[in-house]
Amino acid sequence: SSSTTPIKATLFPGDGIGPEIAESVKQVFTAADVAIEWDEHYVSTEVDPRTNSFLTWESLQSVLDNKVGLKGPMATPIGKGHRSLNLTLRKELNLYANVRPCYSLPGYKTRYDDVDLITIRENTEGEYSGLEHQVVKGVVESIKIITRKASMRVAEYAFLYAKTHGRKKVSAIHKANIMQKTDGLFLQCCDEVAKKYPEIYYEKVVIDNCCMMLVKNPALFDVLVMPNLYGDIISDLCAGLVGGLGLTPSCNIGEDGIALAEAVHGSAPDIAGKNLANPTALLLSGVMMLRHLKLNKQAEQIHSAIINTIAEGKYRTADLGGTSTTTDFTKAICDHL
Amino acid sequence: SSSTTPIKATLFPGDGIGPEIAESVKQVFTAADVAIEWDEHYVSTEVDPRTNSFLTWESLQSVLDNKVGLKGPMATPIGKGHRSLNLTLRKELNLYANVRPCYSLPGYKTRYDDVDLITIRENTEGEYSGLEHQVVKGVVESIKIITRKASMRVAEYAFLYAKTHGRKKVSAIHKANIMQKTDGLFLQCCDEVAKKYPEIYYEKVVIDNCCMMLVKNPALFDVLVMPNLYGDIISDLCAGLVGGLGLTPSCNIGEDGIALAEAVHGSAPDIAGKNLANPTALLLSGVMMLRHLKLNKQAEQIHSAIINTIAEGKYRTADLGGTSTTTDFTKAICDHL
Ligand SMILES: CC(C)[C@H](C(=O)O)[C@@H](O)C(=O)O
Ligand SMILES: CC(C)[C@H](C(=O)O)[C@@H](O)C(=O)O
Repeated sequence: SSSTTPIKATLFPGDGIGPEIAESVKQVFTAADVAIEWDEHYVSTEVDPRTNSFLTWESLQSVLDNKVGLKGPMATPIGKGHRSLNLTLRKELNLYANVRPCYSLPGYKTRYDDVDLITIRENTEGEYSGLEHQVVKGVVESIKIITRKASMRVAEYAFLYAKTHGRKKVSAIHKANIMQKTDGLFLQCCDEVAKKYPEIYYEKVVIDNCCMMLVKNPALFDVLVMPNLYGDIISDLCAGLVGGLGLTPSCNIGEDGIALAEAVHGSAPDIAGKNLANPTALLLSGVMMLRHLKLNKQAEQIHSAIINTIAEGKYRTADLGGTSTTTDFTKAICDHL
Repeated sequence: SSSTTPIKATLFPGDGIGPEIAESVKQVFTAADVAIEWDEHYVSTEVDPRTNSFLTWESLQSVLDNKVGLKGPMATPIGKGHRSLNLTLRKELNLYANVRPCYSLPGYKTRYDDVDLITIRENTEGEYSGLEHQVVKGVVESIKIITRKASMRVAEYAFLYAKTHGRKKVSAIHKANIMQKTDGLFLQCCDEVAKKYPEIYYEKVVIDNCCMMLVKNPALFDVLVMPNLYGDIISDLCAGLVGGLGLTPSCNIGEDGIALAEAVHGSAPDIAGKNLANPTALLLSGVMMLRHLKLNKQAEQIHSAIINTIAEGKYRTADLGGTSTTTDFTKAICDHL
């Protein structure tokens, strides 16, 4: 496949451990002979007035042009008036659905076996509207926005995902007993889309009950779709079931077929540059990107190599109880290819 | 102690399985010779115009007079314009803090051992403001309100609780990276109160990370204090760690020393009247009420009897994998006294 014209993909290595784990992805992809040409963009040290953030206009344009990308962790530099980098990407690129699969990794024991969950999070509105103000001294309010448009497109995405991935059930997570209008609209949209997928079992679950049931018995769930903040909370909870954000991939889906895969863990500045970081979440996110590009053979090869390396247990980074460096772990994966 | 003047306490048996589990509490309290005179109030079948809910004015007045009460599950009858019974109680009685201890029950195995957490939830505002409206067709908003007053009093309560209960740490749970003004104000209040308790370790934890850490290692936490919706979510998650809402008590704290202990599980209409319900959550809530009344000896006696009955495992209700009826389980507890 080295003769194929390479596909251009944006790469945001990000901050902290980002460059090291991005290097790991590049090496593994090269070893697997993936025909990708990376278009690398770093977070700028200055605010770009065209984006009002530390992300350059060129870097956003790169994703819009390539329609596909991979992103490491980005810590938003402290400074008033500048938008969070992660949120800027989501809003500017209209990344409306955030897909986070959480599955047990063979050989890496947690309290839970055989977890296999997909959380699909609305990624653009809800509690993340940014609308907040002080009403009078000592009284502040935040506004949560739910729109039919955003709810429909994420519901559509969730059911289509379920269908195309052989999933049996979609649970819509909400708190409509309290927020009847906002979460009520979200549910209405899910109800409407569900009708078009009679083969998929559909249920509505209140978020508090969902969290209780997830920790008691995650096998009760399959695909979960929900508004922004619930998705933020529940995707982290689900990641916790299988070992944490260092092991779980994610992919953001935008209009016009854009996909930006992303490791959602932090930038871990304490271990940055020390060759200690675990690249698994970014590698598995890279696999999601390859599947999105329909490079299924290489996606599965790389996936197996990662899974088998962790399962064997000989090479593991410190967060998984091992003593391997990032480069040793990466080399072990390449050797499995 | 049968010669002591009995303390008057309001009892809301509630709906569904409520009357059966309330009967269990009455029997156990009688067997333990607790000098309580119950002032029973049922949910009305008609809306009381003085409360605009199915709770009568007299029943609210009873809690205000007695300053102490115990409440079973209450399902809000469906009907537009009538307030949720649970929320009416919280708002009308100004029950500003909801305390939910979650601890592993000896002999009842879950995936987690030695869980010992206290969630303290702001109970009157936040996402439960009831303020929602349609902005334009297809666009709705909900308003989350955070006040300095409510945040201060729940923070004060949490730190005082930690201190008087020999707890070492208070974690304030938030999403101030997104809701800087509302959750920011909540955190400011916690910071301020924390300064008065230098002996208590204080930390701030983002809610998504908190959920991940709770499922990975609940021993990282001790007392958790948070705004209303996060408390709703995290208290259910914590209950899930030890077996669910059928096993965890709660107590609502109001101004002027009011305490309304409450089983927070549902009314389980499917098994109502069948002598199958597990009264544990209401019994343990009753124990919280006794501790609030400083009837510590009887509180501990009853607590041990419940714990030991469950630990022995001979008498357990169906939800815990047993075959006992509510009355058999209750009798077993009385026999342990
Ligand atoms: C860093 C933070 C703004 C972000 C979020 O809240 O969405 C993160 O928790 C995530 O899940 O990607
Ligand atoms: C029934 C519901 C309104 C209530 C809440 O959301 O507070 C319940 O979940 C609880 O935790 O007491």
